[in-house]
Amino acid sequence: MKKEEDSTLLERTILLHIAYDGTNYHGWQIQPNGITIEEVLNRAVSDLCQEEIQVIGASRTDSGVHAIDNIAVFSTNFKMDATKICYALNQRLPDDIRIMKSYETTRGFHPRRCRSKKEYKYQIYCDRIEDPLVSRYTCFEYCPVDVEKMKEAAKYLVGEHDFKSFCAVRTQARTTVREIYKLDITKEGNIITIIIEGNGFLFNMVRIIVGTLLKVGRGAYEPPHVQTILEAGNRSLAGPTACAKGLTLNKYTFLEE
Amino acid sequence: MKKEEDSTLLERTILLHIAYDGTNYHGWQIQPNGITIEEVLNRAVSDLCQEEIQVIGASRTDSGVHAIDNIAVFSTNFKMDATKICYALNQRLPDDIRIMKSYETTRGFHPRRCRSKKEYKYQIYCDRIEDPLVSRYTCFEYCPVDVEKMKEAAKYLVGEHDFKSFCAVRTQARTTVREIYKLDITKEGNIITIIIEGNGFLFNMVRIIVGTLLKVGRGAYEPPHVQTILEAGNRSLAGPTACAKGLTLNKYTFLEE
Repeated sequence: MKKEEDSTLLERTILLHIAYDGTNYHGWQIQPNGITIEEVLNRAVSDLCQEEIQVIGASRTDSGVHAIDNIAVFSTNFKMDATKICYALNQRLPDDIRIMKSYETTRGFHPRRCRSKKEYKYQIYCDRIEDPLVSRYTCFEYCPVDVEKMKEAAKYLVGEHDFKSFCAVRTQARTTVREIYKLDITKEGNIITIIIEGNGFLFNMVRIIVGTLLKVGRGAYEPPHVQTILEAGNRSLAGPTACAKGLTLNKYTFLEE
Repeated sequence: MKKEEDSTLLERTILLHIAYDGTNYHGWQIQPNGITIEEVLNRAVSDLCQEEIQVIGASRTDSGVHAIDNIAVFSTNFKMDATKICYALNQRLPDDIRIMKSYETTRGFHPRRCRSKKEYKYQIYCDRIEDPLVSRYTCFEYCPVDVEKMKEAAKYLVGEHDFKSFCAVRTQARTTVREIYKLDITKEGNIITIIIEGNGFLFNMVRIIVGTLLKVGRGAYEPPHVQTILEAGNRSLAGPTACAKGLTLNKYTFLEE
């Protein structure tokens, strides 16, 4: 049984920091109708390690959403220097998915089973005509938008709240209470950038928040109305889900227990 | 002959400001082997005006090169308000080509037959691994680059010179003398941005200049060697042609005669 013992001893868990342009993917999670990041990554990792491997993603981003720093882990007996695995994987991945860093982590580490915080960036391009050199990573807004009103409205959302109104109805979450640590809105040139950080986000939550803030910006209702929407716990009162291409997962941080 | 006279009276020339992501195009100029910006634009303009129209481009950018502000003109009898033509054309164009502005100009105006200056931007992403969220518009540089040395080398190129060494051998230009008004190099984060402005550029000239400056940055030769290359009038002494995707035509300005 020497061999089996060795293999158990050798087994280790590798953590990957992943960046991707989500334009050409049907999101993170494997599904029958289209190619996904997880699927492409599984194939590259399995090919490199010569084992059938399924990665575990930290954030299962939606179709068309981008990431600067998503996380995935996988366990393997493959012996390559962990910090070099990123280079070997990049040779097996398409240009729009890159492993920015790889290293060994605690054996069996599961990224969705530990406390974490996530930071998302949402970008809106405001003009009369969409700019083809930024349209891949921004949502287009033709109407004039009052950014100061959006900032005022954002204040009602910071903190711990029940975000049921800001969650797609087909959620499977046990609780709809989440905490938003930060919700910053800035405008530079034609681009509004929204940075949102929290301990977790419900299904479509960031995009529904953006869709609601944009309604405030366009003058559909006043900033305090966001408090009413929050208290109602009713998805139909909030704004529409803003488009996916404006959203980027900026950062995924594991917190100490 | 009433009709013909009327048509002559009606004929007018429309000027378009065009932005495009060049990734999916074989450059500006119509060619048999792939789809080009000019071809797509001709089709949209002809469809809108219900006449067979061929636009005249100011700058015939290479395959894969982008533009924030290229210019094209066309003559037509079509009567629509000229400032609204951009919206009507955008409905007929793919997302990666946008007409940013349209207006009427001097009848028969030919954009390549008048004095002009052009500004190009070239972007280089410097890191160990390419970032998929900027790779569409930047050239990737793995080696460490000394930006100060690049700035020093750039000084030798500013002014009026014979740029024969910095021109693709298959040029058809009558003279290889050009004037560079500005060649600014800055670095912000991982991205080096080179802004170059001149009265005209030879075939591949901007990309050969960038390829040469990058060789200086990597330490292949010292900045004053650029003077030697310039004086030699020999393409083989300059650096390689830097990749197309890092290049964007920023601005095209017509000068008063």
